[in-house]
Amino acid sequence: MAEKSIIMQEIDFLVKEKEPSKPTVFIIKVGGNIIDNPTALATFLANFSSINGYKILVHGGGKIATKIGDDLGIKSSYIDGRRITDTATLDLVTMVYGGLVNKQIVAKLQALHCNAIGLTGADANCIPATKRGVTSIDYGWVGDVQANDISTSFFESLFQQKLTPVIAPLTHNNKGSLLNTNADTIAANIAIALSTSFTTRLIYCFEKKGILDDVNDDASVITNINTITYQQLLLENKLFAGILPKLQNAFNAIHQGVAAVLIGEGDDIIANTTTQHKGTLITK
Amino acid sequence: MAEKSIIMQEIDFLVKEKEPSKPTVFIIKVGGNIIDNPTALATFLANFSSINGYKILVHGGGKIATKIGDDLGIKSSYIDGRRITDTATLDLVTMVYGGLVNKQIVAKLQALHCNAIGLTGADANCIPATKRGVTSIDYGWVGDVQANDISTSFFESLFQQKLTPVIAPLTHNNKGSLLNTNADTIAANIAIALSTSFTTRLIYCFEKKGILDDVNDDASVITNINTITYQQLLLENKLFAGILPKLQNAFNAIHQGVAAVLIGEGDDIIANTTTQHKGTLITK
Repeated sequence: MAEKSIIMQEIDFLVKEKEPSKPTVFIIKVGGNIIDNPTALATFLANFSSINGYKILVHGGGKIATKIGDDLGIKSSYIDGRRITDTATLDLVTMVYGGLVNKQIVAKLQALHCNAIGLTGADANCIPATKRGVTSIDYGWVGDVQANDISTSFFESLFQQKLTPVIAPLTHNNKGSLLNTNADTIAANIAIALSTSFTTRLIYCFEKKGILDDVNDDASVITNINTITYQQLLLENKLFAGILPKLQNAFNAIHQGVAAVLIGEGDDIIANTTTQHKGTLITK
Repeated sequence: MAEKSIIMQEIDFLVKEKEPSKPTVFIIKVGGNIIDNPTALATFLANFSSINGYKILVHGGGKIATKIGDDLGIKSSYIDGRRITDTATLDLVTMVYGGLVNKQIVAKLQALHCNAIGLTGADANCIPATKRGVTSIDYGWVGDVQANDISTSFFESLFQQKLTPVIAPLTHNNKGSLLNTNADTIAANIAIALSTSFTTRLIYCFEKKGILDDVNDDASVITNINTITYQQLLLENKLFAGILPKLQNAFNAIHQGVAAVLIGEGDDIIANTTTQHKGTLITK
């Protein structure tokens, strides 16, 4: 596979963007570091609301679920960064992610003249999922999503009404239960699903400016990672373990039709919706 | 005002129903007595999902918010049956009503092949409201709704997509805050707003078969109350205080275009969407 220069990849993206039959959608995932900080969240939402065109916000939960869970006597446990979701924990995340966090974001976006609509995957059956099977680990009420199952027609109807979906990290099993689902994975699968009709850019906002070449140097952002350089970084052990699931989602997306994936800081969200991006661009 | 017989009023409703330009919508409010009881809720949702045509479910919160509030150290206080909503209580009801109760109902309806979409008034700005002014009482973060402000075009677009809205008792002030709002009042105002384009029937489900002539005799359902007989019942002190806000909402609705209001038991929901109703029919 020949490696393309960043400039050539940007040109690819611009060419796709200009296909009249394929308008652009930005699928933006915002993580707990911003959700948990009212000032950072206010800045982020102001920037998000100013982005023109079709956009979807997918949010994680942050530490507030853990705090409220502690107050309610619900202990959170994790395996490989995934919360183990017993029934009490499912109720907790349904309250906190699906209610408190989601609806507060929607109300704040409305005040910014962004006509937001808060959703879980159960709403309009937009993101059905399958409860993860029990192998060596029982993750509990955790959902696995297939891009093919996502209701793209529903999202398109929201866009036609100039509505901006705000998605909580919850899906459902079509058997009456909600399912706790990783927000990065939801965002990637929505981006993949919409790539048939749209030029999609998936943007992961996290606590760094991008993937760093030197974890101790915030200025050492790797501006581009492709399939080949990703393998090199893995061989060199340059990537910290916490970023690997995000990169796996990013490459899954890129290899299933998503035009570009950006990983960067929430403050750079406006730049990262342009060709002047400041984060790490993931390409094939 | 001449009093019409019940049969004549039913004929009025049927005639309106048959206007080809005015399809029927049922706006059904379900209260805490059903929400709090898993078996009653399962039966209710199975019946609700089997109702043909356009329908909207508006739900209250039940005692679960009080219970979770107690566990979190948030005390609930009430004046005239309305919760006083300080910031902690607003967060509580946003979590419990907007998250837990709303999304669990949506997931259960999906399993019953009813394509539900859970909403607060902030979502798609569908029910904007005004924070209640402080007079002798400061109700806190409580919203007052005007039927004129409700986004009927949004609800119509959901109907066109064969979606069934499930509304939590929350609105927003367009300034970034959610507002706790009485579910009976939300249901009445949605019914009023939709009456321009639809024949509307507003159905309040509560713990009795209907308004009782004798509070100690569950079989003494008053089959019809109109403006005149309502005044008589008030003069005779036949109505218990708790039902008065519901009746006020019912008569507001009837006098602003709603074709019929039914007050009855959740178990009778199917009958109460037909002319063979079992509850109390409120008419002009």
